[in-house]
Amino acid sequence: MPNYKLEISYDGNRYYGWEHQPDQPMTIQGKIETVLARMLSPEEGKPGEIPKVIGAGRTDAGVHARAMVANVVMEPDRTPEEIQDYLNRYLPDDISVNDVRIASDRFHARYNVIRKTYCYSLYCGHSKPVFDRKYVTVLDEAPNLQKMQEAAEYLKGTHDYKSFCGNSKMKKSTVRNVEEIRFEGNWPRVKIYYTGSGFLQNMVRILTGTLLEVGYGRLQPEDMERILEAKDRRQAGPTAPPEGLMLMRIDY
Amino acid sequence: MPNYKLEISYDGNRYYGWEHQPDQPMTIQGKIETVLARMLSPEEGKPGEIPKVIGAGRTDAGVHARAMVANVVMEPDRTPEEIQDYLNRYLPDDISVNDVRIASDRFHARYNVIRKTYCYSLYCGHSKPVFDRKYVTVLDEAPNLQKMQEAAEYLKGTHDYKSFCGNSKMKKSTVRNVEEIRFEGNWPRVKIYYTGSGFLQNMVRILTGTLLEVGYGRLQPEDMERILEAKDRRQAGPTAPPEGLMLMRIDY
Repeated sequence: MPNYKLEISYDGNRYYGWEHQPDQPMTIQGKIETVLARMLSPEEGKPGEIPKVIGAGRTDAGVHARAMVANVVMEPDRTPEEIQDYLNRYLPDDISVNDVRIASDRFHARYNVIRKTYCYSLYCGHSKPVFDRKYVTVLDEAPNLQKMQEAAEYLKGTHDYKSFCGNSKMKKSTVRNVEEIRFEGNWPRVKIYYTGSGFLQNMVRILTGTLLEVGYGRLQPEDMERILEAKDRRQAGPTAPPEGLMLMRIDY
Repeated sequence: MPNYKLEISYDGNRYYGWEHQPDQPMTIQGKIETVLARMLSPEEGKPGEIPKVIGAGRTDAGVHARAMVANVVMEPDRTPEEIQDYLNRYLPDDISVNDVRIASDRFHARYNVIRKTYCYSLYCGHSKPVFDRKYVTVLDEAPNLQKMQEAAEYLKGTHDYKSFCGNSKMKKSTVRNVEEIRFEGNWPRVKIYYTGSGFLQNMVRILTGTLLEVGYGRLQPEDMERILEAKDRRQAGPTAPPEGLMLMRIDY
């Protein structure tokens, strides 16, 4: 059976994250699998077998994706374009399938990831972000961006990011490589782009929350070394809200 | 008392339009007047006199504004910046006051308008517009843009736009000057900018609905002359949906 590669955008606001959960209808993976099961159904009205949609990673509840990548192995009775059109017709407005193509049998959306890029969007001004209010985090006071950039330099590289991991029961390695933390724009809109080999649970949000602590002077840029060293979640800053975070791009 | 000039953005989706209506709490004007009344209240908890906020024009239910202009004459006990901050604190997330300044006593937000610019946003593609889905009109099939542009040439100029007026009881002149109808972008996203001295009720939406009829071949560009001539709403196309329309700019 062919292996289809999908590229998906979604507004995470209504969802409990990407990953399918039992008894939780509002997940992106769950929505896509349900529509595919209907598409593959042998008879009208009877649910077909549910194909397993493998995402490049999990996004937290409320986090958005401009280009999540997934793969699914299933019956070849429709063209990629027909599959895309079927999904877009039956998926809700806040999930779009932007591309469907046949990938190599060996393609695995999670194992083959080389690099992911996330963007965290901040807003701070006398006005309010009316039209993108669901996709930014609004700050009451402007943090010091230069201090945040200094702190970001310490957080780049290959480190054990245990202090920045939201899963306290994580048993596997918490070492990751963060290639780049890049600031773009100026107030009222600042975006922070994070590119790396992979990110732990909540990691981009905890990195952002910690950088904001630096921006507000509650931590110093050089404290980042100590926090990494501590391998203790309590040393890092709070987890920034999910709505400002967007998965931008995945490289294979 | 000083005359304050306000610039306001709003997402029209939840509202019954700009204009205050009796027994209808969900209007933009009504929301702003309510917050100003609270600000001007002589005592905590007691509503003050409701100041009259004069908008540059009415937007229909569901229509958005990037920069509506309004003026309001009221007590001078706060600075423009304090007024802006107060409004933004108490107005809902989907209304933002972007600027407050003291204008000349003679400034009237409606009578002094020289020119308004609206933008109608269309989307047509195999994907869906997830992040701006509330601000575009999605088309199932792509209309012919060149035919639409040809038709737009007939609709520019100074004409009696009675055929494009949603108010059949309109007693005043329906002559307006449309300086420009400009197309921007290509599929999946096309924007049509309308600039003119003023627009009748639903006029931009009826112009857009009529241009779409041309784009789908149900009308020819040269039919526009006949439709203008007829001064009969039934000759023009349908009223395009409100969510694709945004008031962009007002010149004084």
